[in-house]
Amino acid sequence: MAPHPFRTLNLEETRIAKQVILASHPDVVVDFREIFLQEPAKELMKEYLALEHSSTPGQSPTSKRPPRLAKCQYDVIGSDKIPEYHESIVDVETSTQVKHEVIGKDTQASLTMWEFDTLIEACQRSEEFQKAISEFKFPDGFELVIEPWPYGGLDLGSENRRYFQGLCFAQDTRNKNADSNFYAYPLPLIPVLDAHKKEIVRIDRLATGGKGDSLTGQTHSERVLDHCQSAEYVPELLPGGTRKDMKPINITQPEGTSFTVTDESLVEWQKWRFRVSFNPREGAVLHDVHYDGRSVLYRLSISEMTVPYGDPRPPFHRKQAFDFGDGGAGNCANNLSLGCDCLGVIKYFDGVVVGSNGEPKVHPNVICLHEQDNGIGWKHTNWRTGRAVVTRMRELVIQFIITLANYEYVFSYHLDTAGGITLEVRATGIVSVVNIDPGKTSEYGNVVSGGVLAQNHQHIFAARIDPAIDGHKNTVLHEESHTAPWDPATNPNGNFYEIRKTVVERSAGLDAAPEHNRVFKIINPSKLNPLSGNPVGYKFMPPPTQKLLASKGSLQANRALFTEHHVWVTKYRDDELYAAGRFTLQSQHERGGVYDMAKRNDAVVDEDLVVWSVFGLTHNPRVEDWPVMPCDIFQVHFKPSDFFTANPAIDVPSTKNNASVLAGKECCVEKL
Amino acid sequence: MAPHPFRTLNLEETRIAKQVILASHPDVVVDFREIFLQEPAKELMKEYLALEHSSTPGQSPTSKRPPRLAKCQYDVIGSDKIPEYHESIVDVETSTQVKHEVIGKDTQASLTMWEFDTLIEACQRSEEFQKAISEFKFPDGFELVIEPWPYGGLDLGSENRRYFQGLCFAQDTRNKNADSNFYAYPLPLIPVLDAHKKEIVRIDRLATGGKGDSLTGQTHSERVLDHCQSAEYVPELLPGGTRKDMKPINITQPEGTSFTVTDESLVEWQKWRFRVSFNPREGAVLHDVHYDGRSVLYRLSISEMTVPYGDPRPPFHRKQAFDFGDGGAGNCANNLSLGCDCLGVIKYFDGVVVGSNGEPKVHPNVICLHEQDNGIGWKHTNWRTGRAVVTRMRELVIQFIITLANYEYVFSYHLDTAGGITLEVRATGIVSVVNIDPGKTSEYGNVVSGGVLAQNHQHIFAARIDPAIDGHKNTVLHEESHTAPWDPATNPNGNFYEIRKTVVERSAGLDAAPEHNRVFKIINPSKLNPLSGNPVGYKFMPPPTQKLLASKGSLQANRALFTEHHVWVTKYRDDELYAAGRFTLQSQHERGGVYDMAKRNDAVVDEDLVVWSVFGLTHNPRVEDWPVMPCDIFQVHFKPSDFFTANPAIDVPSTKNNASVLAGKECCVEKL
Repeated sequence: MAPHPFRTLNLEETRIAKQVILASHPDVVVDFREIFLQEPAKELMKEYLALEHSSTPGQSPTSKRPPRLAKCQYDVIGSDKIPEYHESIVDVETSTQVKHEVIGKDTQASLTMWEFDTLIEACQRSEEFQKAISEFKFPDGFELVIEPWPYGGLDLGSENRRYFQGLCFAQDTRNKNADSNFYAYPLPLIPVLDAHKKEIVRIDRLATGGKGDSLTGQTHSERVLDHCQSAEYVPELLPGGTRKDMKPINITQPEGTSFTVTDESLVEWQKWRFRVSFNPREGAVLHDVHYDGRSVLYRLSISEMTVPYGDPRPPFHRKQAFDFGDGGAGNCANNLSLGCDCLGVIKYFDGVVVGSNGEPKVHPNVICLHEQDNGIGWKHTNWRTGRAVVTRMRELVIQFIITLANYEYVFSYHLDTAGGITLEVRATGIVSVVNIDPGKTSEYGNVVSGGVLAQNHQHIFAARIDPAIDGHKNTVLHEESHTAPWDPATNPNGNFYEIRKTVVERSAGLDAAPEHNRVFKIINPSKLNPLSGNPVGYKFMPPPTQKLLASKGSLQANRALFTEHHVWVTKYRDDELYAAGRFTLQSQHERGGVYDMAKRNDAVVDEDLVVWSVFGLTHNPRVEDWPVMPCDIFQVHFKPSDFFTANPAIDVPSTKNNASVLAGKECCVEKL
Repeated sequence: MAPHPFRTLNLEETRIAKQVILASHPDVVVDFREIFLQEPAKELMKEYLALEHSSTPGQSPTSKRPPRLAKCQYDVIGSDKIPEYHESIVDVETSTQVKHEVIGKDTQASLTMWEFDTLIEACQRSEEFQKAISEFKFPDGFELVIEPWPYGGLDLGSENRRYFQGLCFAQDTRNKNADSNFYAYPLPLIPVLDAHKKEIVRIDRLATGGKGDSLTGQTHSERVLDHCQSAEYVPELLPGGTRKDMKPINITQPEGTSFTVTDESLVEWQKWRFRVSFNPREGAVLHDVHYDGRSVLYRLSISEMTVPYGDPRPPFHRKQAFDFGDGGAGNCANNLSLGCDCLGVIKYFDGVVVGSNGEPKVHPNVICLHEQDNGIGWKHTNWRTGRAVVTRMRELVIQFIITLANYEYVFSYHLDTAGGITLEVRATGIVSVVNIDPGKTSEYGNVVSGGVLAQNHQHIFAARIDPAIDGHKNTVLHEESHTAPWDPATNPNGNFYEIRKTVVERSAGLDAAPEHNRVFKIINPSKLNPLSGNPVGYKFMPPPTQKLLASKGSLQANRALFTEHHVWVTKYRDDELYAAGRFTLQSQHERGGVYDMAKRNDAVVDEDLVVWSVFGLTHNPRVEDWPVMPCDIFQVHFKPSDFFTANPAIDVPSTKNNASVLAGKECCVEKL
């Protein structure tokens, strides 16, 4: 049986794609970057899904199945040794290349991990770098560590060569532990690599001053690490060890899970039914999300994020990661581990990654799926009879975690028993730091440890919601609540407030307005709720988080136009998946991102449309964020709004959980 | 050993208070309302707590112990039969009345549950009411149910008599189930009781019209319930029963809890140490909250909430509950049940309530205390070595749940391993509804079921935070992040953003400003963090939720001036615990609430101050909120901000949980 059209490309399919590409590029070297599923055109999928949903469960339709396509991203290196970036689409069932595109040199392909190796090697070879490093005297037993980073936004007028930069630290090797935290010892220089020449072409020297010092002043001394201090986080290096008084909490499901997974992609749970896939750019993606046989979403993904830093000292204006576009959230996904990243009964999904030779391998446990209890779901006590009916809120969690050098993000989709969908992001890991002179403080960040300045920055995320509320033709409106004017006839006592509805007629960027309780509704105008008479829909309140702080027209702002609004509504087009555009690495300006999509001024009433939710945090670090920060948690909630004819969780059983016990009556009482 | 000064008054102490009151009021009838702990003056407690924290653990200081005082609230009924409301304070160790106050007749005492009985009896006796009800023809087998409510705000010019009102419904008795949901059958009249006369003095007839109908039109027909439909929630009455495919999730702690409870009030867990008490007005209160021997809070409570309705049709302008001031959150607390309201290993605390005769009895299981896992606490993967260190976020939850007629609130305080404190409110229960004519819709709410209009309303909460950040003298400031102007010398690339700090110098109301990432910090200006040089503190971002919508100067707005701002900072005074003032029942204007406290314009820099957080939701009901609404969840997070010298959770062990298993490998595999 052919894989479902939404299923992640498997090893065999990936290998076919590789071979087709190699065959179509004879006599040159092909360096692969990515090979992953090119999702079918939506028009084809609509037909296929309609058939699928009307056929016997478990039977995939054989007709109308769109071709299995692979998107292949690779460099072609000819006799001039200069890599040229190509993208092709390969039909892996017919082994044919169906599209081939040579990408212009004014954009840069996403980075690959093996490009990082080039940086390290070039630093080792670079006399200039070695000399620069030797100007510093390390404490005894400390060794250099270079952390490769994307170069960041390209300054106007710079030649668009392919650059990488290295953040430099020193690691204490005396404890013979490769996980000793080198971020606690930042060095104030950055080698810059020309990736095509494979040479260090410049060394940026970083200011280490504090308040009142100039932006470019080189105040650092030879013994620049002497005032830094150890900040370990691996348990065996903690000076006091780990705490001993935390007793285990076990989560068990003795009767098994309430979900089923078929074909490694179809998940069914508590009336929900959806497909999950994984790709190197977006990580986990949900497709064709249905509830009780009714369509809710066509696709749900985290599309992009940007992390600009607010330190004005060059080169930190270039310090701005696009973690999805630059390197790929899927590429950076952790291989998750039972009993650590999630508790309970866990189903893992694997991804597929390719090496530079195009050979695919399994990227194991990149998604975890599990159920969890989220407290009381609904409750009512009849005070007359004393009868309390209380049910739990159960959630199904689809989670992936990415590591980007020092930093971690935990992304998850939560489907719940009340028909809700929650997007959650947890930000954790090690904040990005630079060296600061002894005794100084800075307007550009917070001194979180001796010699360590954690720079102020923002994280701004874009989620992409491709709705299909009882069908593909939907409309977005926002609803506000406003104080009504006093009026003897309509509001004699001043307590009336009116609800104002505004339909989004044309593709546009829109903002949160919590002061008016602005709620966005995605509705199907053709289908009315039989009780309320309102169109069926889902609603969300965009988190009214601070937008990008970088000045309008600045490099940081130009690269991330998607941050200009909290909500975007665009008309659907195939392949428009990325909020900041296809190419973000070294970009000077967002191209083909959601700003451009909205600018088309498309009619979006009763149309196939896409909603983008942009939210984030301004992160001015606390000392408590060091050395590894406790998770900061963000959630966006999508809730049915007159989609159903009652609380969909009303039939959740109010069964007493028999495993719960009184404190002091647990099986192995120790304290109480 | 005498009880700790913060411990809830016990049965014996309560009984002594009752006897002292009875003895001080001979020859009259005393009808008790409440007897509960009068907390000691803070100046006395400071001395006591200083001693307590410096003495051997487990040893209570014997000197400096403040007296145990009981606040007694009661009606005195003399020969004129008109109750007069008194409040007294009794020293229960010396059996002496230390304060006695006759409350003026322009305010009304909080209601008691037994006053509700009077309403039902008066309705039964009232010919006018019986006649009014008989104008309606009920469906076969339906019987009248009267739901007593506070009268609401007193219209200007009305005589301030003590009123109650009854919302009328009909219950289907054919299914012989006392928990059949009568709210699905609302009747359009409201009897009004004069509580002192014990007579129905008026019947308000409710409009049942829709869009375009006048505010007062009596459009309802004789068969006003015929278009209503059953909306059951108790499992045995659900037409399709409950779902069968939800497998249990068990949460167990085989080695016991990580917390200890001493003296039924002192809780110690993961470096946290605090006292918990319970009183009839605020429910659960935390006192003297310390972390690792350092003071964080003197007291934390939910102070008040108001629920105004936006339906302009009289008498709904009076529909505005003050659930803490009117009836008492503690009085309305549910008796919690193992395996239902919380899972895992649970410690319950009891409260004490008095009857009208002053006789106390135990109000069992009003607070539950348990630990829970809240997902990943912090994580970092060293991508060089592949070593992932991941810890869980553990929380200690102190929860109480209140039922107010149709509606439920779940309040909880969460202390976590990262030094954070989260206030959580879940809103659930049955939305308040009125009858609407067949086929109509309304601007005042949503038709959630046949004949049932769920009216638009707001819930606005006030939490009271009495901080003691490393001592009692604290300062509040707010910090904003702002785009800095372009400047060749200070901001050459436009990426700089500056942090602006504003100290709150005088008591005031202040607002959320998420567009500027406004964060409030409560700091101790006398103690600096040794790493950052900043004063030690805790921070919170006030949820920027919509404020009260009722027009300025309206009855609803005047009664709830506390809703004018998201944050209030006031100077501490003993006994100022209630955001909307001591007396809210039938109030026309907030008196002695946080608005008045702020108006004193007290200096609050480096002072003993109180911070109030006001947040809420505008609740325009969905069909999905019927018949029992899924919890809406609100949280306010208080986090250490340069209070510690590192992430306080850095020593949480990253132990793998051995009870977690792969899906398909659980002990009783059924599906996978």
